[in-house]
Amino acid sequence: MTITLTIDCMGGDHGPSVTVPAAVSFVRSHADARLMLVGLEAPIRAQLKKLKAQDLDALTVVPASEVVAMDDPVEVALRKKKDSSMRVALNLVKEQTGQACISAGNTGALMAVSRYVLKTLAGIERPAIASALPNPRGYTMMLDLGANVDCEPQHLLQFAEMGHALVSALEGKERPTIGLLNIGEEVIKGNDTIKRAGELLRASTLNFYGNVEGNDIYKGTTDVIVCDGFVGNVALKTSEGLAQMLSDIIREEFGRSLLTKLMALCAMPVLLRFKRRVDHRQYNGAALLGLRGLVIKSHGSADAYAFEWAIKRGYDAVKNGVLDRLARAMEENAYPLEQASRDAGGAGHASPAGRPAEPYSAVSSKA
Amino acid sequence: MTITLTIDCMGGDHGPSVTVPAAVSFVRSHADARLMLVGLEAPIRAQLKKLKAQDLDALTVVPASEVVAMDDPVEVALRKKKDSSMRVALNLVKEQTGQACISAGNTGALMAVSRYVLKTLAGIERPAIASALPNPRGYTMMLDLGANVDCEPQHLLQFAEMGHALVSALEGKERPTIGLLNIGEEVIKGNDTIKRAGELLRASTLNFYGNVEGNDIYKGTTDVIVCDGFVGNVALKTSEGLAQMLSDIIREEFGRSLLTKLMALCAMPVLLRFKRRVDHRQYNGAALLGLRGLVIKSHGSADAYAFEWAIKRGYDAVKNGVLDRLARAMEENAYPLEQASRDAGGAGHASPAGRPAEPYSAVSSKA
Repeated sequence: MTITLTIDCMGGDHGPSVTVPAAVSFVRSHADARLMLVGLEAPIRAQLKKLKAQDLDALTVVPASEVVAMDDPVEVALRKKKDSSMRVALNLVKEQTGQACISAGNTGALMAVSRYVLKTLAGIERPAIASALPNPRGYTMMLDLGANVDCEPQHLLQFAEMGHALVSALEGKERPTIGLLNIGEEVIKGNDTIKRAGELLRASTLNFYGNVEGNDIYKGTTDVIVCDGFVGNVALKTSEGLAQMLSDIIREEFGRSLLTKLMALCAMPVLLRFKRRVDHRQYNGAALLGLRGLVIKSHGSADAYAFEWAIKRGYDAVKNGVLDRLARAMEENAYPLEQASRDAGGAGHASPAGRPAEPYSAVSSKA
Repeated sequence: MTITLTIDCMGGDHGPSVTVPAAVSFVRSHADARLMLVGLEAPIRAQLKKLKAQDLDALTVVPASEVVAMDDPVEVALRKKKDSSMRVALNLVKEQTGQACISAGNTGALMAVSRYVLKTLAGIERPAIASALPNPRGYTMMLDLGANVDCEPQHLLQFAEMGHALVSALEGKERPTIGLLNIGEEVIKGNDTIKRAGELLRASTLNFYGNVEGNDIYKGTTDVIVCDGFVGNVALKTSEGLAQMLSDIIREEFGRSLLTKLMALCAMPVLLRFKRRVDHRQYNGAALLGLRGLVIKSHGSADAYAFEWAIKRGYDAVKNGVLDRLARAMEENAYPLEQASRDAGGAGHASPAGRPAEPYSAVSSKA
């Protein structure tokens, strides 16, 4: 089976100088992948030429005349730039020419345009942003990371359903464990929303582990952790900040003098292994879940190596039938969800909560 | 001036075997400190004997017949154990025999008993837990770290006032900068509570920087960061989990073989400097702010070195007149706060939001 992905080549801080090399490298190592490179033709073709990749059959250039800037308001992306690379790349997924779209464009715009173009899955009130964070045994899938700043209990239940479908599709796990992010393990902890979400989760058919705390993300206590987008985004960016500070300190200490530089040289094999293991770029690529199409959001500042990982995420999602799994899981749970919504007294048609936050990769290690 | 502190010797995972050595070491290096060691007499005296510290004038043993266990419900600590070491140590502060109380006991119990014994400062609806987190230039004071799971905008304003008073007292900074933890820098980001808190902060006399994000904690963008206790606790424990994972990986990589162990040996001076710089134990000791007395909460799992740092926090707070500063700041701002409460449509008498979460020290490094 050929897997066709659409690449918003203009998104991110670096545009085609990052996205095109990543695409070229990806098709060179994945024989069954076809990539549609969407954006301004000249810079894309210039990059292809530079990489001697003009004749690769696996790459097609699809022209789009506009670019959504990283600081464009959602409204501009949505209403003024109808021929943006982002929009065209998403349209190709809607028409089923491509099976997933990968973009490093600004999160708010990407979520809004994706919702507009692709629409949400039946049973989904709020799409969410999901990303894998490293733990000692693999990764913890965490959502929401910034799409929804205020959540009702039934939204957290929906996130859990989506996380379940995603991880069971990607990892072949029958019943991945679900944790509810809280500030203590006891059932009585947390605010009202969390407590009611806990009740819904306990009553669901999901493999609900119970409450987990912030440190459980990196312990890998559960396969999936759900939380509202405000808390998830803060946890993610806090991680990013801490990892950056620690790696800066390591670099500073080893760079202090000729002697310490020699010590770094001695320890280099270990330092490099450490760096490889915690390299945040391997975790690039958050999934926008709950849409009638697969969309992967890359970190805006991704380099080609990191962007290639985001492409890989889209490729894996298609290969593992994530979209079908999600749609099926939502269908199966449609009744309980509506029930849950009524039980929890939540709004049936909650509006999207403003502009989503930029999700960051967690573990940064430039040490 | 002599500074007298009361030590709840029975609190924490290790009790007198940690608290007493810490106290002995502290008075040996601080000639103007007097410590009252509160708890079961026999184990405290046994520790003193072991340390050949029975005759130190700076130490007094104050007997208390009961112990608040780490898993005691708040109600038990509050109503059943009236002669607990925690309660007696707090009573001594209330009677002004001691000037600050240091305890590693369970956070929920400590906050509840402190509120009951000491009462809150005029103008404070909700005490908060504040702790210093490391940044490249020193520390960021962050609050609330788990005392209040749901906050109204005016509570966040109060936290800012308290953070301002604390940092200006401790650091002699006239106008420390205040950041509001959010998921984006733009004013339009965040939920309603955050947006309204931002308005109150902008209208206040505080040196309000604006919104900050999770990574700003470790960048040191502002002197103080305010957030609700749910978000603060998640950020803190997430940091703890990440730091632990990273240090485990470093240890694992250096321990892999004889060769890598040799490399560790070569790099040891740098690794030790790194470890010292990021040692979370130096940041042990969170302040319970907003009470008519100073209370420092140590991490429950603190060792003697870490607990000594918590004692130091109490000592510094007394020496710098933190309590007076806080009371004065609250008085000066009493009118605007009531106004703010009305403006924000908040409850005048918000109840404490359940059992506070356990604050953890952030940067864990056993590497």
